Amino acid sequence: MARHYALGLDYGTNSVRALIVDVSNGSEVGTGVWEYSQGNNGVILTKNPNLARQHPADYVKGAEASIKKAVQQARRVSRGFAPADIVGIGVDTTGSTPMPVDRQGQPLAFQKMFVKSPDAMAWLWKDHTSVAEAAEITELAAGIRPQYLAKCGGVYSSEWYFSKILHCLRTNPAVSNAAHAWVEIADWIPAMLTGTENPDHITVGVCAAGHKAMYNQQWGGFPDAEFLEQLDPRLAGLMMNLPSNAQPIGRPVGGLTKQWARHTGLKEGTPVSVGAFDAHLGAVGAGITTGTLVKIIGTSTCDIAVVPDDAPLQDIPGLCGIVDGSVLPGFFGLEAGQSAVGDIFNWFVNTGKNGTHESLAKAAGRLKAGESGLLALDWNNGNRTILVDQRLTGLLMGQTLHTTPAEIYRALIEATAFGALTIINRFEEYGVEISQVVCCGGIAEKNDLAMQIYADVIGRPMKISKSSQTCALGAAIAGGVAAGEAKGGHDGFEEAQKQMTGSRSRVFEPDPSAHATYKSLYRLYRTLHDAFGTKDGSGNVHHVMKELIAIRNQQRSNA
Amino acid sequence: MARHYALGLDYGTNSVRALIVDVSNGSEVGTGVWEYSQGNNGVILTKNPNLARQHPADYVKGAEASIKKAVQQARRVSRGFAPADIVGIGVDTTGSTPMPVDRQGQPLAFQKMFVKSPDAMAWLWKDHTSVAEAAEITELAAGIRPQYLAKCGGVYSSEWYFSKILHCLRTNPAVSNAAHAWVEIADWIPAMLTGTENPDHITVGVCAAGHKAMYNQQWGGFPDAEFLEQLDPRLAGLMMNLPSNAQPIGRPVGGLTKQWARHTGLKEGTPVSVGAFDAHLGAVGAGITTGTLVKIIGTSTCDIAVVPDDAPLQDIPGLCGIVDGSVLPGFFGLEAGQSAVGDIFNWFVNTGKNGTHESLAKAAGRLKAGESGLLALDWNNGNRTILVDQRLTGLLMGQTLHTTPAEIYRALIEATAFGALTIINRFEEYGVEISQVVCCGGIAEKNDLAMQIYADVIGRPMKISKSSQTCALGAAIAGGVAAGEAKGGHDGFEEAQKQMTGSRSRVFEPDPSAHATYKSLYRLYRTLHDAFGTKDGSGNVHHVMKELIAIRNQQRSNA
Repeated sequence: MARHYALGLDYGTNSVRALIVDVSNGSEVGTGVWEYSQGNNGVILTKNPNLARQHPADYVKGAEASIKKAVQQARRVSRGFAPADIVGIGVDTTGSTPMPVDRQGQPLAFQKMFVKSPDAMAWLWKDHTSVAEAAEITELAAGIRPQYLAKCGGVYSSEWYFSKILHCLRTNPAVSNAAHAWVEIADWIPAMLTGTENPDHITVGVCAAGHKAMYNQQWGGFPDAEFLEQLDPRLAGLMMNLPSNAQPIGRPVGGLTKQWARHTGLKEGTPVSVGAFDAHLGAVGAGITTGTLVKIIGTSTCDIAVVPDDAPLQDIPGLCGIVDGSVLPGFFGLEAGQSAVGDIFNWFVNTGKNGTHESLAKAAGRLKAGESGLLALDWNNGNRTILVDQRLTGLLMGQTLHTTPAEIYRALIEATAFGALTIINRFEEYGVEISQVVCCGGIAEKNDLAMQIYADVIGRPMKISKSSQTCALGAAIAGGVAAGEAKGGHDGFEEAQKQMTGSRSRVFEPDPSAHATYKSLYRLYRTLHDAFGTKDGSGNVHHVMKELIAIRNQQRSNA
Repeated sequence: MARHYALGLDYGTNSVRALIVDVSNGSEVGTGVWEYSQGNNGVILTKNPNLARQHPADYVKGAEASIKKAVQQARRVSRGFAPADIVGIGVDTTGSTPMPVDRQGQPLAFQKMFVKSPDAMAWLWKDHTSVAEAAEITELAAGIRPQYLAKCGGVYSSEWYFSKILHCLRTNPAVSNAAHAWVEIADWIPAMLTGTENPDHITVGVCAAGHKAMYNQQWGGFPDAEFLEQLDPRLAGLMMNLPSNAQPIGRPVGGLTKQWARHTGLKEGTPVSVGAFDAHLGAVGAGITTGTLVKIIGTSTCDIAVVPDDAPLQDIPGLCGIVDGSVLPGFFGLEAGQSAVGDIFNWFVNTGKNGTHESLAKAAGRLKAGESGLLALDWNNGNRTILVDQRLTGLLMGQTLHTTPAEIYRALIEATAFGALTIINRFEEYGVEISQVVCCGGIAEKNDLAMQIYADVIGRPMKISKSSQTCALGAAIAGGVAAGEAKGGHDGFEEAQKQMTGSRSRVFEPDPSAHATYKSLYRLYRTLHDAFGTKDGSGNVHHVMKELIAIRNQQRSNA
């Protein structure tokens, strides 16, 4: 019997990965990674330390190169595999990464006049040039459209779609005048593969629109023209040039063009799914469903849950976003996250020459919960959930003259686990049941000590996703659903996930004694969390971190 | 014209130093150091990690060896110097370091039956075996003699005289039965040199008695018999075997014996001053007088001020001790201190492999006040003044993913400077004017960055004592005063200090701009200090450090 495969394309910050997966059992038969060729590992930098862009030529080259590599590997590994057996394609990307395009949907960066203009390229998710515009959007929305903010944690970020467009409108008239629309690369790459880039007809995905562009069916889609006009009349005009309805993953945006079929060896007309962000398709690849929290734990975390969209769901304060259909069709996608996790461990190891991760983890693993007397807050990069406050900083207390680096390393891991528990508690306080936690990402894959501490702190088993490529796997699953059962794929995500995802046999189970101690420590963590992070729980120390930052900024600007 | 000299003997934790000083100008003509021969660098240790003792044989050998070395050097360096030109001798020691003696005043440790008994030796200042007894004494005094506690910061320490005797009474009947009295080595060493060890006639110094044994003229000397009997009837009996009046430094306890004159080459009958603790004679050697704060800054600090004893002086909450005559006759001696200063810097450098003191100080010196955004509490070893609470721990906040070791190193120095300012403020709140600060000790001598930060934080010039051996110099000054002007010494400390002490020409002046920033940072330090260290200023975090310690102790005891 002929086997059928789906292809996932995972566009990261530094490279693109193609993954070929057997739709009947999730087995990964071929993968290919292509490192971006432009800029600094794919990121265009300038003297402005806040600026981070990507050149869309890398998106084009990356699809071809990575697919070819994956196909080659699948041919070698899987006897009888043929590219024509790939029945559907899915795409995930970073985001919010919007890009200005012309009337035909072609990137301005491809035009000769903009060849050296970073503003004409894709504005990478971590570009922070648009802080002032984000504050302006937050302020306006707080005044006249509070409902817009309620779905995105109360603050509109400088990393997001409208902040970036507005900054360009304010600072670069040439690019602004040439831009007919701004398209998230999560939408543009599927359009590129299917020849549907024209802004009039491009398919807008609900994941990017909902999480980054305040799209919501509650108010009829994107923000209304009156709101946008108050920011800038041109912004309202730009939005008129895009479709007003957004689509969930699994729906095909079109079929692979003849040209792309020739480039890659795949079949012309292969359906390509609506695109979505990496974390969201990562959750799909990790088997997300009602009651499952998927934690993608790397330098930071993305925590994703889903709730059937016919169930009642109130707004949850401090969550990054609640968007209908952003993860799975028919479900609210709920996104939370921690601003730094692995980054904190890396900071401690790299900055202080305190030992290697391996040596520190070994020594820290011999310690018992609470034995060091240390307690830390995991805010070295601010707090995304549930405080939504970038102006928070790290804290370590309990040091004596005998405190060791391994004790500090463990305290930092514990702090991130306490942060993770705070997110789970917030979900549950608002009726979102979490019956299991499935982890993926670098920390989940490599740091057993962290996973055991997470289990002990959270008091639930920590499962690890079977696939190490959950984002690309999730994209492939979307491709399989876009194909449909009739063409060898699946008719829905439930069936597709059941067959294509799973978790490993090794589960990190909580130790009851450690969990009891961590309950006491979490109470103290929460005391500090509320005292330094909220006005309610503050006593009188709430202002301290902010004032330190204000003094720091003043002293640095005097330099 | 013949020159006259005084000899200071400085008994430290690991060695004894002899210093020969010209009484007319303080010039140091000879010094000799002898490392103790017993135990671990002079400290007798057992399996009990709280135990720290010294063998009195080292005191005897140390006097002879160090004096001989100093005399040899003086002969080489100073043409015409003769040991007979030494007109007076002074002694300073660690303390509280009490030692059990027999009816003749000889250490029990010299008796054959106690040759292996650490309890028969001197109980070194840092011996912590007597925690339970200290708590018992504090509780009893709080109940029936609150005035006793008011002079020593509200808590009687496990490091002090009665705690140690009581612990021995409770745990070692053989030593307890053989002990006719317990004598501080600050008193025993002058007695040894002058043959006045018999407890009936030994001279008790007011420095040790006042600071460690609750001696005060307000209640007629040592604690009353009723109080002592409630602790243990034998304690009252032991105190009956000692003179009931204590004497200030500068008063001679006797003349050097013929035997000691023969051992050392010094003149028989040379007057030997009443002994005192190292920090107090260090303050004398640094030129202490009304309005001067002397800071002895090493691993920890001792901060000493004096106030004329005919001036009104209320009790000062949180001070280690207020004792009439403990530093200079005719003045109240006021003692404060920080539990860890250099120890914190050493901890950071040695534990974390974060660089050397030199490399960190160099990088930290390039930073401006407040530029790092960090703030620390200097409580890694508890807080001695003004909170008097060992159950406090370190805290560091403001960390980001870019925080460097040099920034942390500087924040730790700043924290100790904020702690120093808190002590000065407490003095001034209670009417003790501080018009200049003179520093001595290892940090003052070697760490220019710390001294500049202290000046910038405190907002006053930091002077450095001219002598690097202020304790031994102070002891020599006391020897000079014991001799008196008629015998070539001085008739009082004012004149002696004027001629024999001074500060260096290099003064660390506060930078007005840095001081302005540190004023803001100190306000934040004080917020954290009060929140975590006091119940009044707590908001709701006061309990956190204590609970962490309780959890830690529980987990360690479960190990």
